[in-house]
Amino acid sequence: MVKSEKLWLKNHLCDGRYMRKIDNKMNTADYNEAVLKLLKKANGYISGENIAKKLNISRAGVWKHVEKLKKEGFSIKSSPGKGYLLLSAPDKLIPAEIKDGLATSTMGQTIYYYKETESTNLIAKKLAMEGTPDGSIVVAEEQTKGRGRLARKWISPSCKNILMSVILFPKIQPPRIFSTTMLASLAIVKGIEQTTGLKAMIKWPNDIYINWKKTAGILTEFNAQQDMVSYVVIGIGINVNFDPATYPEIKDISTSLFKELGQKVSRVNLLQSILEEMEKGYLLINQGNFSEIHSQWNRYSLVNNMPVEIRSFDTVEKGVAESVNLDGSLNLRDQQGKIKKIICGDLSLRFRR
Amino acid sequence: MVKSEKLWLKNHLCDGRYMRKIDNKMNTADYNEAVLKLLKKANGYISGENIAKKLNISRAGVWKHVEKLKKEGFSIKSSPGKGYLLLSAPDKLIPAEIKDGLATSTMGQTIYYYKETESTNLIAKKLAMEGTPDGSIVVAEEQTKGRGRLARKWISPSCKNILMSVILFPKIQPPRIFSTTMLASLAIVKGIEQTTGLKAMIKWPNDIYINWKKTAGILTEFNAQQDMVSYVVIGIGINVNFDPATYPEIKDISTSLFKELGQKVSRVNLLQSILEEMEKGYLLINQGNFSEIHSQWNRYSLVNNMPVEIRSFDTVEKGVAESVNLDGSLNLRDQQGKIKKIICGDLSLRFRR
Repeated sequence: MVKSEKLWLKNHLCDGRYMRKIDNKMNTADYNEAVLKLLKKANGYISGENIAKKLNISRAGVWKHVEKLKKEGFSIKSSPGKGYLLLSAPDKLIPAEIKDGLATSTMGQTIYYYKETESTNLIAKKLAMEGTPDGSIVVAEEQTKGRGRLARKWISPSCKNILMSVILFPKIQPPRIFSTTMLASLAIVKGIEQTTGLKAMIKWPNDIYINWKKTAGILTEFNAQQDMVSYVVIGIGINVNFDPATYPEIKDISTSLFKELGQKVSRVNLLQSILEEMEKGYLLINQGNFSEIHSQWNRYSLVNNMPVEIRSFDTVEKGVAESVNLDGSLNLRDQQGKIKKIICGDLSLRFRR
Repeated sequence: MVKSEKLWLKNHLCDGRYMRKIDNKMNTADYNEAVLKLLKKANGYISGENIAKKLNISRAGVWKHVEKLKKEGFSIKSSPGKGYLLLSAPDKLIPAEIKDGLATSTMGQTIYYYKETESTNLIAKKLAMEGTPDGSIVVAEEQTKGRGRLARKWISPSCKNILMSVILFPKIQPPRIFSTTMLASLAIVKGIEQTTGLKAMIKWPNDIYINWKKTAGILTEFNAQQDMVSYVVIGIGINVNFDPATYPEIKDISTSLFKELGQKVSRVNLLQSILEEMEKGYLLINQGNFSEIHSQWNRYSLVNNMPVEIRSFDTVEKGVAESVNLDGSLNLRDQQGKIKKIICGDLSLRFRR
């Protein structure tokens, strides 16, 4: 690779990490990403020779990577004499698509992509133990054992929604762990607003609602010593282009962005927005600015000042949810006017309307 | 296997789980354990024919298992016409030895044994994720990457000490996690007292001291969701037959049971006592009886009412350690008489004498 090409790559490929890989040795996935970037950048035809020269590979190599991209769902026209033309990108959450234009320095810079997996949180926990970079994400098009809180099943047909786990290594103590759930909730709400204009709200402790129906859920798991969190895995499931009406068990309580908006949403754009918002919030946490996260979260809280029922295994408590504390507990004012601190635990919250 | 033999096994082999294995299909390790039990039980010579008949295997099979036991360090004499005689058992923490006479129903009933491993906690965390039974233990004769709290190195030459991790699945919330460290500390102190008569004390948060020197350390790691602990791994390192005087970096601050007692201690007996005490304490935790664990722990607490220094990265706080709370925090009365709650975090505690 000559100096001018290196400079070109530095200007045209997204980040320093990427650059380092090219300087050392790119693997197949890297080349796929690089070829895709050139096709997008071209805004029209680009010759195989041109691509080959820019990436310092053979024209047969270019052809091989174009074929791989086609298999991933990209529609690419090849025309003798003109070269290659990118017609359309698939709505898949493949790393090359997520990274293209992603304005973060850590969040989502390392991506593990699965067409199908048991559970992204399970994979993420293993990766965390093995020491993957801070902000790595695991993305799946479909989960065979997806679970929400209280081990509830999470329904999601293939390639319709966002199913991912984010791996963080925050320097916080276990009592601060709820700040990471708050961070994720905030990023989802803001990401949805930026991408669709829809107004989403956070239902304590870890759900996202639009028009009183569930749109997204979060499952935070963490590993810690007595006094120090080692890693946090935040599992996120968002109903995007999925129609919950086709599933009787959730049709009355769930919605999706597609259903609320009346049109399909780009999962890639939404995911990028969420990752960018998460990076901002994570910075606050790492600065120890928990109160900023907390006060932002409260602005989107659906429960604050609402009459609610808290259902445990065999008891029902009624009251008004006054506010949520930074540790994740809810202040419930009961019918006698006494404030009770509710830890989320094995309970569910319903609005009294 | 005929009925009378089954009855014999039921009477002579230790527990129901074991019995089930024999009824199904015993593996090599099970047969080794069974042969060893018969050799121990014999209290003199036992013929190969006798063993073969009792275990329903061939005499060549018996010989094979005896050879395996010899390789594990058991001294077994074979005499034509008389059979086999167990002369001595190795002081190794092999499962057959630990289980022989172990009076627990869960704790230590599943054992993973390593002659050498990076870290028993690392293995234990992986096993916990894969769903090993509650109370499983990982035992190693030597660790290449043994660590204590604050990532401090844990020195332990091969086959001298106890290095193990206990895997628990308690139904507790994260703020209760310190009760599991308390449980382990109590079991170690009681186990040492029962086995050696030595009086050990607990130095907050997670060390065991004898005569003002460190004898054991505990490293509790856990995995949780916001409101529910998924698993706990309790790493335990105990200086048993090791002489810390040979290591300049720890010789002034550490001791061992051997050094305090003036004679070697059976690691197997000590480990069995600890597992039995842990089972009792774990029952209390699972009954939600945290206050019993807490009050027992306080009886052995070395810091209570002692003048101490709490050293953080760059600060030193002096005061009197009044007591330790159930959540693991320490109440420090400072020189102005004010009580300050200290979370263990990145600090160390020294006694002022």
